[in-house]
Amino acid sequence: MSTDFPFDVITAEEYERQQRVHGGLTDAIRELIDAGIRTDVDDATALEAKAAVEAVTARLRSAQRTTTSTLRHAGTGLPLAWANPAVGLRNAIAPPMVIHHEDGGRCWAEFDLGLPYEGPPGLVHGGICALVLDHLLGEVASDGLTKPLFTCTITLRYLRGTPLGPVRAEAFVERSEGVKTFARGFLGDADGWTVEASGVFIRPAWARGTE
Amino acid sequence: MSTDFPFDVITAEEYERQQRVHGGLTDAIRELIDAGIRTDVDDATALEAKAAVEAVTARLRSAQRTTTSTLRHAGTGLPLAWANPAVGLRNAIAPPMVIHHEDGGRCWAEFDLGLPYEGPPGLVHGGICALVLDHLLGEVASDGLTKPLFTCTITLRYLRGTPLGPVRAEAFVERSEGVKTFARGFLGDADGWTVEASGVFIRPAWARGTE
Repeated sequence: MSTDFPFDVITAEEYERQQRVHGGLTDAIRELIDAGIRTDVDDATALEAKAAVEAVTARLRSAQRTTTSTLRHAGTGLPLAWANPAVGLRNAIAPPMVIHHEDGGRCWAEFDLGLPYEGPPGLVHGGICALVLDHLLGEVASDGLTKPLFTCTITLRYLRGTPLGPVRAEAFVERSEGVKTFARGFLGDADGWTVEASGVFIRPAWARGTE
Repeated sequence: MSTDFPFDVITAEEYERQQRVHGGLTDAIRELIDAGIRTDVDDATALEAKAAVEAVTARLRSAQRTTTSTLRHAGTGLPLAWANPAVGLRNAIAPPMVIHHEDGGRCWAEFDLGLPYEGPPGLVHGGICALVLDHLLGEVASDGLTKPLFTCTITLRYLRGTPLGPVRAEAFVERSEGVKTFARGFLGDADGWTVEASGVFIRPAWARGTE
């Protein structure tokens, strides 16, 4: 029995192509999301924009992948998320976070959170801070998503508002006890941490006793 | 001193226009995000799509609002979020959640979470569950965002995976003690709750003693 999620293996060349072609398209859609929030064009122009967007969507839907499962890099063995709203290569909702894995298991990411992530004026929505930290803690607890693991609980402590703009997030494993892994992490700006997270992750029953 | 966030007041007619014209554009961008994840078109077509998206963005940016502050409905007095990633009328990242306020202060929302919100295969990303619940708890704790309030801590307990598709979220205030409000909430599908949340919200120092 497989003890892991299904993966499609792709070569380094195919990954580079995906990143170049579809990473670029995703960046363009990200800019469109921002423009849609800020625009003050008249109704006729907004309706024209809507029709143009619908035409692009139809074109992209003319050929669709039959699976959207996570890809695995043939060289590094690391998973490449496709649709993930935190890190997905193809998902314009994702900031995206590009996660760096240090020796010793610490993870970190530096990225920008602009207007589409705003909650209170000028500040990142608390739920977006939660999305970022939930993802990073899950990633560190599962060794870069190579082990199946589910979030059991996560607690977020908001120290102060997180200004929109460049942010840094970090996470590390505190300890493991049987099927449970305890992880901690932080989100912050140049002035220090703004949000602290602690999470308990659990190995699902179907994956126990197989390692 | 103002004890509230800045708001621009708009009429019911203007709100209906915004919803009709810009709500439609936002829906179209939401479909484009999904198509960008699923597409399997060749490189030339993907690059054409990117150029077409960039052209729409430039058109929308030809006139931009100078402020993106939250709007307040002149009739109901309720805030209308513009850029909010959970409920924003103009934000394609938002599912969007349309939040209903019951007498007695309970809030609920029913909406769909599709592929762009996926974490593990077929399941909603845990961080998206956190975003939804953080927002709903904040909304119920602040009387529909009419009072300034910040999240102090929030704890999410994952009972089982949340399948992609239609979901329901609910939240209510458990109790208030001085400057603190304790709220609870749930997210789930037709089979019951999948995630439970409890949060502590605090009135900022600048808004105390003014009510």
